[in-house]
Amino acid sequence: MKAIYYDGALAFTKEYAMPKRKAGEALVRVLAAGICRTDLEIAKGYMDFRGISGHEFVGVVEQCDEKKWVGRRVVGAINCGCGKCAYCLRGMERHCPDRSVLGISGRDGAFAENLVLPEQNLHRVPDALSDEEAIFVEPLAAALEILEQVSIRPTDRVLLLGDGKLGLLIAQVLHRIGCDPEVVGKHRKNLSILSKKGIRTRPAEDETEMREGQPLRYDLVVEATGSPEGFEQACGWVRPRGTVVLKTTLAGASEIDLTPLVVDEITVIGSRCGPFAPAIRWLEERAIDVRSLIGRTFPLEEGLAAFEEASKREALKVIIMNNEQ
Amino acid sequence: MKAIYYDGALAFTKEYAMPKRKAGEALVRVLAAGICRTDLEIAKGYMDFRGISGHEFVGVVEQCDEKKWVGRRVVGAINCGCGKCAYCLRGMERHCPDRSVLGISGRDGAFAENLVLPEQNLHRVPDALSDEEAIFVEPLAAALEILEQVSIRPTDRVLLLGDGKLGLLIAQVLHRIGCDPEVVGKHRKNLSILSKKGIRTRPAEDETEMREGQPLRYDLVVEATGSPEGFEQACGWVRPRGTVVLKTTLAGASEIDLTPLVVDEITVIGSRCGPFAPAIRWLEERAIDVRSLIGRTFPLEEGLAAFEEASKREALKVIIMNNEQ
Repeated sequence: MKAIYYDGALAFTKEYAMPKRKAGEALVRVLAAGICRTDLEIAKGYMDFRGISGHEFVGVVEQCDEKKWVGRRVVGAINCGCGKCAYCLRGMERHCPDRSVLGISGRDGAFAENLVLPEQNLHRVPDALSDEEAIFVEPLAAALEILEQVSIRPTDRVLLLGDGKLGLLIAQVLHRIGCDPEVVGKHRKNLSILSKKGIRTRPAEDETEMREGQPLRYDLVVEATGSPEGFEQACGWVRPRGTVVLKTTLAGASEIDLTPLVVDEITVIGSRCGPFAPAIRWLEERAIDVRSLIGRTFPLEEGLAAFEEASKREALKVIIMNNEQ
Repeated sequence: MKAIYYDGALAFTKEYAMPKRKAGEALVRVLAAGICRTDLEIAKGYMDFRGISGHEFVGVVEQCDEKKWVGRRVVGAINCGCGKCAYCLRGMERHCPDRSVLGISGRDGAFAENLVLPEQNLHRVPDALSDEEAIFVEPLAAALEILEQVSIRPTDRVLLLGDGKLGLLIAQVLHRIGCDPEVVGKHRKNLSILSKKGIRTRPAEDETEMREGQPLRYDLVVEATGSPEGFEQACGWVRPRGTVVLKTTLAGASEIDLTPLVVDEITVIGSRCGPFAPAIRWLEERAIDVRSLIGRTFPLEEGLAAFEEASKREALKVIIMNNEQ
């Protein structure tokens, strides 16, 4: 089958072996897949992954044990637990130590004609959602994970660092639940998408001005900068005994001073993948706008150009379409 | 007055100016003061403090506005807030941005004949407690701060990294509340103090053995190693979605990879000073043993030798006594 794969370098091929479906798994024909920053990190060596990346997808089930799924349009949760360990048995399959993760670890992903996922990972896509919109289920679920981890009050002073593709979703989630978040970012075009929705934004270079205008620091800071400096910036902005949610994953270590975290008794919470069901509900209800976050689309054959586009500053969600029906 | 002071180097003098009491403050004659690892860090440049260090003390009030305090034996909370800012007004004076901290920041400390603290910081010492025991109120309060921050269940799998002076208190606190903590340390003599109390201990060099024997990682890891490696060790031992409490403060930054924290969705909580009232109650009730943690005592004149003793491996709490009554 056709696929974009990474093996020390990204390449396109028409000859990749079709994935093999095991019992309980579904063979899915990919309709479209979005490029995430994690895919760009993988192409730099993150997770030492080799194979087909891509984990934000929508597709149609072609083969499956449970016949009700066949022909259905689906999205899929990307973590595949072993189903037997203490984590899986506690409903924490996203943290199974033996898990595979679609397009990230131990399982080929969505930048291909077909992929395989356990049936239990599948979620039906409502007809009201286009393929392009459905691609946002996975990253919106990651944004919703913050609500699974932290109790956020409408009056909390909330700062979001980062206006990338995930940041634009997190900002809307924080706004949706009644907060008045402030978003600091480096991309004026992206910030303007948020300010049009009534969300307060500020370019990163205005930091000094912010610092002077703030009598109290923030109760909650969400760090989604994708940069090594994000963590210390977040700890600098949060109030004593406040909370920092950390979304950025990077290949490699950085020079970090943890003493301010101890002195200010800050809570830092790592946050990764999230729940699909509420993400699908919110997309169907149009609670979160993703249409204005859709960038350029490319056919699978032009996947390398798609990656190049996705790594540009201010790139919105770049989508690889599988046109062969 | 006599004092041990730091001004780029530690020195003893008989000629330090007596501290001046402001309205609302108490002049305290120091009876005894303990040397904490933070004092050793200050003598390496931590906090850029200049003056008299020492914050674990017991003394007698000599002058005070509130006459009831005069002649009383007291210990004292070390953070002195401004009393006016948003933090102080919310009862968070320990986090007042304009605070002074006894012997750590902006206020001379306890390695001297006298010190000055706000009256509201004072706590009466029960007669049943010796001077040496009363010195442990402050570090025990710091250990109790963990209970102020985290809800710990008796069935939680709890690991404590560090068997220094604070570690020996934290271990007893965790044991006291119904947990069966495991303590990993580098000092066999210190670990034996805990194992005699029925607390599980393991020398740090047995890490490989631990790792192989553990099907599940720990729900809670308390990091009190005092070393730069402690944080990453703690993140390696905690289970996905588990909690790390960080006690170590260090002068300077370290090379740290935060990605495991995000991938495993770990919560990290910085923890500093704690509440005095429950610490005094527990010491009076003999709920926590501190007698076996008392090391050598030195007169104020021999304070430099006391610091040398305190920096030795396996040193217990070294105490500087003020013999001039």
